[in-house]
Amino acid sequence: MANLEDMVRELKLGAAKLSITSDATRKKALNAISEALLENREAIKEANRLDLENARKSGISDAILHRLQFTDDKINAAVKGLKELIELPDPVGRIRERRELDPGFILEKRTFPIGVIAMIFEARPDALVQIAGLALRSGNAVVLKGGKEAQNSNRLLTEIIRKASVSIVGAEWILGIESHEDVNTLLTLEKYIDLVIPRGSNSFVRYVMDNTRIPVIGHSDGICSVYVDENADLGKALPIVIDSKTQYPAACNAAETILVHENIASEFLPSLDSEFTKLGVKVHADDKAIGYMPSALPASDADWDTEYLSLECAIKVVSSIDEAISHIAQHSSHHTDAIISNDEKAIERFFQEVDSADVFANCSTRFADGFRFGLGAEVGISTSKIHARGPVGLDGLMTTKWLLRGHGETVGEYSAPNGKCFHHKELPHA
Amino acid sequence: MANLEDMVRELKLGAAKLSITSDATRKKALNAISEALLENREAIKEANRLDLENARKSGISDAILHRLQFTDDKINAAVKGLKELIELPDPVGRIRERRELDPGFILEKRTFPIGVIAMIFEARPDALVQIAGLALRSGNAVVLKGGKEAQNSNRLLTEIIRKASVSIVGAEWILGIESHEDVNTLLTLEKYIDLVIPRGSNSFVRYVMDNTRIPVIGHSDGICSVYVDENADLGKALPIVIDSKTQYPAACNAAETILVHENIASEFLPSLDSEFTKLGVKVHADDKAIGYMPSALPASDADWDTEYLSLECAIKVVSSIDEAISHIAQHSSHHTDAIISNDEKAIERFFQEVDSADVFANCSTRFADGFRFGLGAEVGISTSKIHARGPVGLDGLMTTKWLLRGHGETVGEYSAPNGKCFHHKELPHA
Repeated sequence: MANLEDMVRELKLGAAKLSITSDATRKKALNAISEALLENREAIKEANRLDLENARKSGISDAILHRLQFTDDKINAAVKGLKELIELPDPVGRIRERRELDPGFILEKRTFPIGVIAMIFEARPDALVQIAGLALRSGNAVVLKGGKEAQNSNRLLTEIIRKASVSIVGAEWILGIESHEDVNTLLTLEKYIDLVIPRGSNSFVRYVMDNTRIPVIGHSDGICSVYVDENADLGKALPIVIDSKTQYPAACNAAETILVHENIASEFLPSLDSEFTKLGVKVHADDKAIGYMPSALPASDADWDTEYLSLECAIKVVSSIDEAISHIAQHSSHHTDAIISNDEKAIERFFQEVDSADVFANCSTRFADGFRFGLGAEVGISTSKIHARGPVGLDGLMTTKWLLRGHGETVGEYSAPNGKCFHHKELPHA
Repeated sequence: MANLEDMVRELKLGAAKLSITSDATRKKALNAISEALLENREAIKEANRLDLENARKSGISDAILHRLQFTDDKINAAVKGLKELIELPDPVGRIRERRELDPGFILEKRTFPIGVIAMIFEARPDALVQIAGLALRSGNAVVLKGGKEAQNSNRLLTEIIRKASVSIVGAEWILGIESHEDVNTLLTLEKYIDLVIPRGSNSFVRYVMDNTRIPVIGHSDGICSVYVDENADLGKALPIVIDSKTQYPAACNAAETILVHENIASEFLPSLDSEFTKLGVKVHADDKAIGYMPSALPASDADWDTEYLSLECAIKVVSSIDEAISHIAQHSSHHTDAIISNDEKAIERFFQEVDSADVFANCSTRFADGFRFGLGAEVGISTSKIHARGPVGLDGLMTTKWLLRGHGETVGEYSAPNGKCFHHKELPHA
């Protein structure tokens, strides 16, 4: 492997070329990638078999093996995902603001690709295809570091994607790296890399944030909660709470805490207890809740701040929506929180006052996802309040430029005592 | 002074209250602040006189004294600025995206205040009023640290603003700090502070970025350039170049480098030389330019990377727009760069390919400013590509939340083999 810094410098030059390619060119490249993936299906499955074999030998958990597997279905879904990205409107060159400063003196805020984005993600070959697709669609170059268990799959996928697209876009725009050392080098290359998006464990994301000057977008914890209000439709509340907790417990948008209003606790909690028992969900309940949940364990203080990521959750009875909002302010990781209620005022208060990336009413926390949101997949979910918040799709991979078109205007003319004045007239834009 | 951490924790609680105040309440508070500033005009001028006296004693430069002075005109302008902020549409609660995921299942991306913003700025009392106004208008709490030379003015202004507004908005939202120690403590309070915006010297901004985990927005260098194309209207080029360099040479948006196409160098540079000589601008010219500019000094390599911030500049003759764009890519600080040309294709290439926050055609670089852009003043200019780029006004002080309103939807229903599908229909929004 050539020197990493040299390769990333090349990628920066490639990013400049990619940023000015047309919509049609980037779509053509995505189509070529889709075809190349299907043509190389057997080779991809063979590389993946090798990864699976090594993973089994090293005794990796079934959950990780399941994510690592790149089956025919997953390959088809990845290609379908690329096709869907092609259908989305071009995120490049959109006009976000348009204003006439003075007759004929026009200011525009237009979207442009950010540049070079470094993505560090888990051992999921389908994630590699999705992330590469989002980067190319949005005109950004990308450095990819996937989980080491998927090394053979990732190496082949990166090469297939690169070969199929580089001659079409006329730019080197994708680079795969494999070692932890390379990640550490990457984090020092602030001159060439514009944004780092780490996915993975809480401690890993923290490590990245603490070891680079490059801006980082991502999330560490996913402590999500569902609040069942006194005016909830309990027939809806039960399936929503069960889906939020059990539909995919290892996901960051799965619920960890259930808050239940005291006025409906005696009706709701016994049925929840019986469903959770059937599904094998271990419950840590507070003093008030435990009376209605014979199978629960008593909750300790630590339970309110725990991301279980498994069939386990904490349940608390609250005396008001205020107590629910204040519990969430104190313990939520500001990722996704939901209210179940038929009271419009309670919903609007929850929407206003809960300071999280995603705030939902009457549906499962598991909807917090770029595909489900209609963003054309996601590179990650951000709990940062800066730049992008919640699922990050094409829009989160854009920056803007202010473009000002004049006819000889000087600031001197606008600063003189009886000089020109700005009229700042908003203009329509698409 | 009470413990700073306690005070900032209080401010975080205040920020939550401020974030849900109505547009009318925040406007009323800004009006009350305007009145209070006018009522306390004499006391403000007295505090400012004390600062000026101390500053003169310590032998501070005329330029800083000029910025420090809070004259009647500047007080009037500051109050006028607050009135203009009131006129701008409410930035809180705006709908940025609206999408139906499935019939009746509506997703909205709505703007919300970021929370607590720490601003560190130079010794300009008018900047304090402007920043506090932007924070309040956008529903954000703010910690203010102004230049120490303005200590008495700042302390009084902060107190006047606080007293006039806190009972109206029902929240503590503004806190002034004075010492460098407090700044260092502030940078550790990531739990309570959502964003730091430092203004000041390159090295100070770097210091802030290197010493906090809180997101930072700002700019360090301001190496701006003007490229005079072969198809430029030289009658316009001359006043634009002069305005860009001399209208206020200490500003970050003043031009430091002038790039001139070789086909018009023999016509343009002698007249520029004579104007610059009259205005006392010292020129560092490359080998080709120096022949046309008898008063110039020969440029060294370092000149292309120098932010003079004074009546001094570097001039280079280039053989094509490509060379100009490539010079800017290598040496510009990606703040503001301008092209002077009558060739639409050259302008569009410059707009596309120059990767700077502000890219201008046929006008002065000095227009890079929140007030001139119609943003209702600015808290700073960002050269970051993340979150906000260029002048940062109300919009740059907002984050968003994704609000999803369902009727019992679970992800399980949408994941089943013959389950529900998303239709992702874009809905109109204001």
